[in-house]
Amino acid sequence: MAIRPKPSIESMKEYVAGRNIEEVARSYGIAPRDVIKLASNENCLGPSPKAIAAVKKAAGTIHLYPSVDAIELKEALAAHYGLPVGNIVTGPGMDGVLETLLRVFLDKGDESVIPVPTFSYYENVTGFSSASPVFSMRKPDYSIDVEDILDKVNDRTKFIFITSPNNPTGNVTPVEDIERIAKAVKCLVFVDEAYIDFSDRPVLDLVKKFDNVIVGRTMSKAWGLAGLRIGYAFVPEWVLKQYMKAATPFAISRVSIAAALGALSDTEYYRKSIETVKKGRKYLAESLPFKALPSEANFILMDVAPLKSKFVADECMKRGVILRDCSPFRGMGDTFVRITVGTPAENKRLVNALKDIRGGA
Amino acid sequence: MAIRPKPSIESMKEYVAGRNIEEVARSYGIAPRDVIKLASNENCLGPSPKAIAAVKKAAGTIHLYPSVDAIELKEALAAHYGLPVGNIVTGPGMDGVLETLLRVFLDKGDESVIPVPTFSYYENVTGFSSASPVFSMRKPDYSIDVEDILDKVNDRTKFIFITSPNNPTGNVTPVEDIERIAKAVKCLVFVDEAYIDFSDRPVLDLVKKFDNVIVGRTMSKAWGLAGLRIGYAFVPEWVLKQYMKAATPFAISRVSIAAALGALSDTEYYRKSIETVKKGRKYLAESLPFKALPSEANFILMDVAPLKSKFVADECMKRGVILRDCSPFRGMGDTFVRITVGTPAENKRLVNALKDIRGGA
Repeated sequence: MAIRPKPSIESMKEYVAGRNIEEVARSYGIAPRDVIKLASNENCLGPSPKAIAAVKKAAGTIHLYPSVDAIELKEALAAHYGLPVGNIVTGPGMDGVLETLLRVFLDKGDESVIPVPTFSYYENVTGFSSASPVFSMRKPDYSIDVEDILDKVNDRTKFIFITSPNNPTGNVTPVEDIERIAKAVKCLVFVDEAYIDFSDRPVLDLVKKFDNVIVGRTMSKAWGLAGLRIGYAFVPEWVLKQYMKAATPFAISRVSIAAALGALSDTEYYRKSIETVKKGRKYLAESLPFKALPSEANFILMDVAPLKSKFVADECMKRGVILRDCSPFRGMGDTFVRITVGTPAENKRLVNALKDIRGGA
Repeated sequence: MAIRPKPSIESMKEYVAGRNIEEVARSYGIAPRDVIKLASNENCLGPSPKAIAAVKKAAGTIHLYPSVDAIELKEALAAHYGLPVGNIVTGPGMDGVLETLLRVFLDKGDESVIPVPTFSYYENVTGFSSASPVFSMRKPDYSIDVEDILDKVNDRTKFIFITSPNNPTGNVTPVEDIERIAKAVKCLVFVDEAYIDFSDRPVLDLVKKFDNVIVGRTMSKAWGLAGLRIGYAFVPEWVLKQYMKAATPFAISRVSIAAALGALSDTEYYRKSIETVKKGRKYLAESLPFKALPSEANFILMDVAPLKSKFVADECMKRGVILRDCSPFRGMGDTFVRITVGTPAENKRLVNALKDIRGGA
């Protein structure tokens, strides 16, 4: 080998994705159409018909570069949320937004504070800048520990990540906690609201109130566009100016921009997505044969103790149902599985599979 | 403002994209259908019909995440180029591939060597890691200065960027020069072959021969998919292992993967794209009323001295033809414009516009 990777990458583990429908079908000799995936928090309704139509319409122009900064999308988001374009940044998925933001602010030797268990990519992106993640354990009910977070902030801290609703635990962080943190620190507070559409407690207003709060969103969940990689964030205006210097030109594909505009015009689909999740979530909470945590997202975390999460996930796969074994989440233990809320038929099938596993274990 | 961006970003300029057809049409009161864009080196034939069909077919599944590492695309590329999957990485455009590669290896205080004038994004991506670009001036014929490059390499150097054919000058770097550099240094040599399909001198074999040569490619040019952001690179196996740790999960959209597979199956379209460019390039070289440099790419660099490039680009726009004024390219001076080879009708219209400008100046 000629040269070595930088230490923060060399020590990093490769991201291991869950198994998809085709792989599970092959492994267990099940027809792919008989496998259901409740592992990635995708939209169980499929895409909006308006998004599908927009994709088809854009197909003839894929040889042309998209707009450099997805301005059409920013304008549509501004109209939808009633915020100025100067407060909106976009990127290829929430991951892309995070990568751009962190490379603006995070330098070697800097730190980010991450309340765990949570979405693991904050840790990776921190390492991309040779910075260090500092973990704060959430409380037993998975609420963030404000005192502990503030204790961990120092001059090197550039970001605090608060996921709300949190992945994989499903609970929302009260706006008062976020305000308390934002007031007390000089660094940026990134509130990841990927799943907020399924809750009724967004904190969008904080972007107007504080110059250090950023609220991240995605079109992968309630808007049904996980396959097209569309993320966005509401930022103070001074952050947008720096973000644009570090943003990848043409980052969102032409087809993705078109589909996003289609989806944003279909509020009926959006409303139905949320309603379906709320109904399904209620049904699952009442029917799951293991302890389910209250959730404001489109997934539910379930404690399968005394069974192990890996055992339950494997047994579900044999029955053609793919769940997420949460043991790889830092600080999550080995008895939790995460379930995406599906269609009524999928939810019922899941409950039956779990009852079967519980009875047989 | 709460905190400051890191210095390498704070001092960076925002990317300024060229004006698109709609903007030019509006500015000069021309109907958009009467404006032609020969500024971004897109494919003048439009997309492959097989790519269009693949996009339409994928439209119904956009609510599902793509494969985490675009494995289907890597397999198709491996088959097409006759190389193992273990030597192929993919990313959202060549820019995305570069971002991932550099964040693996480039740390604060490191350096990259960039022979200029060339594609400007290497400089930006170097800054993303708080590393420093070190420039080597190309010779008067725009060939790289091997001695000067080697003089500029030191222990902090992690990358040397060689664009071949070079953007915006169109000339290819001989394989012997690249071999000489690769042998003499320990750092990585990134050969950016975005435009190599229009030349007959690829250096792909060097990836087998050296453990420090990477060859980058894109589907934005000869494959006609600029709108979908698909880049890839041929890398030594040890590089792939590190790349996968720093790669954004799900980086290439579901529709983009589908379109790429469609395009790769259409070798007839690919062949025709290249033939059209070669014929158009010959016509332009013989017909342009200013000094044109020999090119092995799908564009031609033209010296409009004693006129200024900005003047010629502006005058062309008034006549509904968008070119690229090359004065923002580091080291390029203020009398060069870059022209994308278009269809025969577009090329003819361009020549007439330039004759008109030259006559009137």
